[in-house]
Amino acid sequence: MNTLAEVTALYQTHFNNLIFPSGPPLLYDSIRYFLNGGGKRIRPVLCLLGNQLFNEIHEDAFHACHAIELFHNYSLTHDDIMDSSPLRRNRPTLHVKYNTSTAILAGDVLLIHAFTQINHLRELYKQPIAALFTTTAQQICEGQQMDVNFEATDLAAISYADYLQMITYKTAVLLAASVRIGAIIGGATPQQQADSYDFGKNLGIAFQIQDDYLDAFGDPAQTGKQPGGDILENKKTALLIKTMELSNTSQQADLRAAMQQDGAEKIAAVLQLYKACGADKWAMQTIGEYTAAARNYLDQISVPPHRKSALTELSNQLLERKQ
Amino acid sequence: MNTLAEVTALYQTHFNNLIFPSGPPLLYDSIRYFLNGGGKRIRPVLCLLGNQLFNEIHEDAFHACHAIELFHNYSLTHDDIMDSSPLRRNRPTLHVKYNTSTAILAGDVLLIHAFTQINHLRELYKQPIAALFTTTAQQICEGQQMDVNFEATDLAAISYADYLQMITYKTAVLLAASVRIGAIIGGATPQQQADSYDFGKNLGIAFQIQDDYLDAFGDPAQTGKQPGGDILENKKTALLIKTMELSNTSQQADLRAAMQQDGAEKIAAVLQLYKACGADKWAMQTIGEYTAAARNYLDQISVPPHRKSALTELSNQLLERKQ
Repeated sequence: MNTLAEVTALYQTHFNNLIFPSGPPLLYDSIRYFLNGGGKRIRPVLCLLGNQLFNEIHEDAFHACHAIELFHNYSLTHDDIMDSSPLRRNRPTLHVKYNTSTAILAGDVLLIHAFTQINHLRELYKQPIAALFTTTAQQICEGQQMDVNFEATDLAAISYADYLQMITYKTAVLLAASVRIGAIIGGATPQQQADSYDFGKNLGIAFQIQDDYLDAFGDPAQTGKQPGGDILENKKTALLIKTMELSNTSQQADLRAAMQQDGAEKIAAVLQLYKACGADKWAMQTIGEYTAAARNYLDQISVPPHRKSALTELSNQLLERKQ
Repeated sequence: MNTLAEVTALYQTHFNNLIFPSGPPLLYDSIRYFLNGGGKRIRPVLCLLGNQLFNEIHEDAFHACHAIELFHNYSLTHDDIMDSSPLRRNRPTLHVKYNTSTAILAGDVLLIHAFTQINHLRELYKQPIAALFTTTAQQICEGQQMDVNFEATDLAAISYADYLQMITYKTAVLLAASVRIGAIIGGATPQQQADSYDFGKNLGIAFQIQDDYLDAFGDPAQTGKQPGGDILENKKTALLIKTMELSNTSQQADLRAAMQQDGAEKIAAVLQLYKACGADKWAMQTIGEYTAAARNYLDQISVPPHRKSALTELSNQLLERKQ
């Protein structure tokens, strides 16, 4: 039984051993640049911990982990193009450092390599894992399309239900699938697999809403950055969408006016409206509900407690973070 | 045993039955728009004919065909973004009609759906087909990266060998893999599979060089368009690269000067240099050599002649076309 730190180090070692071809120029250079830029490897670690819930970590799990991590990195490279993001992990993004064509192709190759890793799995569980993986991949693209569409949609036309669907697909299903794929390799029963998935899904939703919350209400001393980055960009976060839903006509007009402002004044005005409408308390409560649901699904999985300890530690780290 | 026309119609019927989800907005609309825009379905037809070389067409072959055709369409959507192409099959390209983000995601989803189709294959040959498919997919991305890199490379720095490598990966390996995947499903021996692959690869190379040739020397009465489109764009075709290799210092200077010109004058000057260096005759000879090699690989496959007739008909259509 490995601790969280051991599993994380174990995966990083395997990840560092991934080898890509040398040429053609730019393509694999850009991939190496992107993959070596850091990243917490949360998803593959969730996969290994899902395996460890039920059994010793199987060598096959690393192929599944690579598929998940390469897929995640594919989605980041293409998202960065769509968002015109200049930086990722404090370094220039691929389309900035190389060019957009290379960034598109690097993402495509990462996606193809993810499937190559799935092909390395043994027959015993290749079919269910491949099916879950392709379904999840499709949902993630759909979630990203919803996010792209939100950009061009008026705030009042986006419901919290729409937002929840978007983050579930864009973020939560990959965490969910990561745990479930590990559980499949570990020999989980169908019910245990379903509980593993729902644990990861609720964890992912809680994590994303918390991300929105910390950007607005995080303590700069703990997050290391001034709050309000999302507000300055008019990003359609859980807080903004929910505030629009909770506010009366006068508050809605105030919110739209505040969104036209700039700088510290804008942040203060929007935060004041978030609080006036109770969106801050709603967010805390909602994060708590998804956190409780995640823990409940984990509790339902009846394995010896020591098998769960690393997974509990990781979820606590993710859900109780202040940054 | 089906004729070429029957196999083509059979595949189109299956292709028309592919169903994609309705939402989210734009994503699947754009995919349906792109897939319904026509296309000759040459690659899936090659796959069915590869199957038919050895056996009756198996229902599984249609999953393989869908994987191949969806992959081909993924690569077109992303290539169109990279090339900033406004039109495809006489209609606006995806990034023009929708937006670049949607075009990237539509390509990604087509790629993922290709792998979903591979997952539907039975265990008997899923592993070798999946391995060939992912290897081929990777090579196609590498070929596209080479093509992207050529754009920014001086003509004199690109050898014909570089060009050959680029078209082999970008174009020929998918035709080769299409025939081989069909052959695998049809129960071909490893040697027959290899011959099927090499048939498709040589066919693809001949086809691509012929494409370059017809753009320069095609008869407008037969091609339906004025020759010289590639010349006007200074596109690094087989003819341009080979002319640079074959020309003396004075001709190279003339070629570079001609490439700075415009319109009919430019086309006439470049064509004159192609002929002066013998690149036109070289191209005809080279197309003939790859055509002969393709036919030779097909001849080597010892099956009753009627099993080959549709494949021979298709390759004749492709290799003896005047447009």
